[in-house]
Amino acid sequence: MNTEFTLDSRLENDCYELGELPHSLLLLMDNALVPWLILVPFTDQNEFTNLEIELQKNILEEVNLVSDYLQTNYSIDKLNIAAIGNVVSQLHIHIVGRRRDDYCWPAVVWGQPEKLAYDQAQVSSLVSRLEVALGDKFTTTFNLED
Amino acid sequence: MNTEFTLDSRLENDCYELGELPHSLLLLMDNALVPWLILVPFTDQNEFTNLEIELQKNILEEVNLVSDYLQTNYSIDKLNIAAIGNVVSQLHIHIVGRRRDDYCWPAVVWGQPEKLAYDQAQVSSLVSRLEVALGDKFTTTFNLED
Repeated sequence: MNTEFTLDSRLENDCYELGELPHSLLLLMDNALVPWLILVPFTDQNEFTNLEIELQKNILEEVNLVSDYLQTNYSIDKLNIAAIGNVVSQLHIHIVGRRRDDYCWPAVVWGQPEKLAYDQAQVSSLVSRLEVALGDKFTTTFNLED
Repeated sequence: MNTEFTLDSRLENDCYELGELPHSLLLLMDNALVPWLILVPFTDQNEFTNLEIELQKNILEEVNLVSDYLQTNYSIDKLNIAAIGNVVSQLHIHIVGRRRDDYCWPAVVWGQPEKLAYDQAQVSSLVSRLEVALGDKFTTTFNLED
């Protein structure tokens, strides 16, 4: 990670920091109602499409890895992938696994107030599955004492 | 375009079809409250991340072109780029130019009921600007008689 990189405080408050991929930090939105992961690329550029094309492609490969993880480990009907940034301007990419019977289907998850906090054991278990799925590209920084 | 490709009827009803890029159809959401373009890749796969990586990269270049067009031709504060597909499963990528003073900032545009229809002259003018911005990659299919 670039040592200049600082995670936005709102993302830090709303999410668990799970670990790092080569080009981004991997967060878990603390809402167990849907599997909701977020990649925060190590850049100070706020728009994905303004990044150098090579960096875009590298981040795209990380989006693919996380998407594969969600499709393999959850019974989901649709992925929702989005770079929005209206509230938190720091570039971050949502990757959300949706089910036709989830709490707000077919509406989008952004702007929905309902939440269900994870307990630490659930997050720890998720990190273990991610380590298997993402292999040596993923380095966890999650700590049970967090 | 692949001759097997058929645009989803809801996208057809909600949008103007502006033309084609090499790998996707370009639509304009018929809501003049925000500049809202949609790329519909020529594929029957519903998940972007399940496409072959080369096709993903080709589509990404078209997302970049459309994003550049929005940033150059509108005064916008943030791009919102998303592949959702909960209502219309056909793969389509929203590229929306947002302003801090637009009709629903900072909320996302999906699920907002407010709309303002374009008139045909506005769409025609937009197509002319797109032809300049996208160059020979873009072939318009928009017809004033539509």
